[in-house]
Amino acid sequence: MTDIAARLAELHITLPAPAAPVASYVPAVLAGGLLHISGQLPFEDGAVVTGRMEGGDDLTRGVRAARACAIMLLAQIERALGSLDRVERLVKLGVFVASAPDFADQPKVANGASDLMEKVFGEAGRHARSAVGAAALPLGALVEVDAIVAVRPD
Amino acid sequence: MTDIAARLAELHITLPAPAAPVASYVPAVLAGGLLHISGQLPFEDGAVVTGRMEGGDDLTRGVRAARACAIMLLAQIERALGSLDRVERLVKLGVFVASAPDFADQPKVANGASDLMEKVFGEAGRHARSAVGAAALPLGALVEVDAIVAVRPD
Amino acid sequence: MTDIAARLAELHITLPAPAAPVASYVPAVLAGGLLHISGQLPFEDGAVVTGRMEGGDDLTRGVRAARACAIMLLAQIERALGSLDRVERLVKLGVFVASAPDFADQPKVANGASDLMEKVFGEAGRHARSAVGAAALPLGALVEVDAIVAVRPD
Repeated sequence: MTDIAARLAELHITLPAPAAPVASYVPAVLAGGLLHISGQLPFEDGAVVTGRMEGGDDLTRGVRAARACAIMLLAQIERALGSLDRVERLVKLGVFVASAPDFADQPKVANGASDLMEKVFGEAGRHARSAVGAAALPLGALVEVDAIVAVRPD
Repeated sequence: MTDIAARLAELHITLPAPAAPVASYVPAVLAGGLLHISGQLPFEDGAVVTGRMEGGDDLTRGVRAARACAIMLLAQIERALGSLDRVERLVKLGVFVASAPDFADQPKVANGASDLMEKVFGEAGRHARSAVGAAALPLGALVEVDAIVAVRPD
Repeated sequence: MTDIAARLAELHITLPAPAAPVASYVPAVLAGGLLHISGQLPFEDGAVVTGRMEGGDDLTRGVRAARACAIMLLAQIERALGSLDRVERLVKLGVFVASAPDFADQPKVANGASDLMEKVFGEAGRHARSAVGAAALPLGALVEVDAIVAVRPD
């Protein structure tokens, strides 16, 4: 078991089958040493976590949704690269949180994804990030996260 | 006529004059083998396609707008690189759809752009993608699409 | 004093202490010659500039906020690279403007950031850009801007 596989096991995370794209594109493209991964939606028990965050809402559901997006990103990275051990550095997360105009805690929601990445990859999981409020997301999703990963040469 | 020029002809697509930036930036920048192209708006008959998508709306107008954005991306890529034949791979599309809170079909709208790219570039046109709902877009546009392209060395 | 330091002085811009990330991520990551910088919020007198733009609003406040985001980007780039002179090219700005559905002047607001970058870096500051309307932004911010910079080898 590699280090990263061990960390996933410690975190009791089993990677799901990576979600098929909702449409006519692909989950990830590697070019110039950077893997660009398509925006991933949050799945729990096979269903998309839907809704939008409003000011005053308990953040737990959003944080869990962002973490679920990150788990799907991991599944896509593993499928694209063959192994998570080829990740040299997580470069960037783009986090979109379906938000009412009065919701201002996108960063705390996004931490659900960011914290997991740091737990899984350690120092290599520390990334740049944008977190913004979206008017609406595909399938009514609560959160969507895309990513750029620097890949170790084979 | 190159392969890609032939495909555009088959699709009855004549590339427009690339739109001038609405503001103080440039249409595309090449760095490290990746061409980053500015967000493009949908033009039909010289006018921006405006509006926003709501739940239950017929999707046709949105799909056409996304396709129009993709055509403008092609025009910008051709101008930046001299020829579309220098495209090694379409890496990523970022698709923003002006959306009411109840609109959840951003992926189907975004397919207007994705499908065209695959028709034009074939396998090299298969890209990673994020599709999100924006509260509003420049000039009241219905859709905006930006892109990253991996470029063949000269 | 380098050229860029001189230009900042001419513009009467003193770079602030770079803002600490609001959450569990890092301000910037360098990979493959590209520096990805996290989304920066607009600070004036140590406080985040909040609100959202509506149709008919005077644009001044938005333009100033975008400029403040750009100044924070400069501070982050300087900290990450040691010197702004290592910037080979500003590749891309991603500009998110908190927007009511009827606000359509995201490009004019975004120019607050774009114009400053061109003043500071000259030709090397001319960048690709996307400007979109966000439903809401972190801490209620009016504008958020992230960036990609091509870096000169050491």
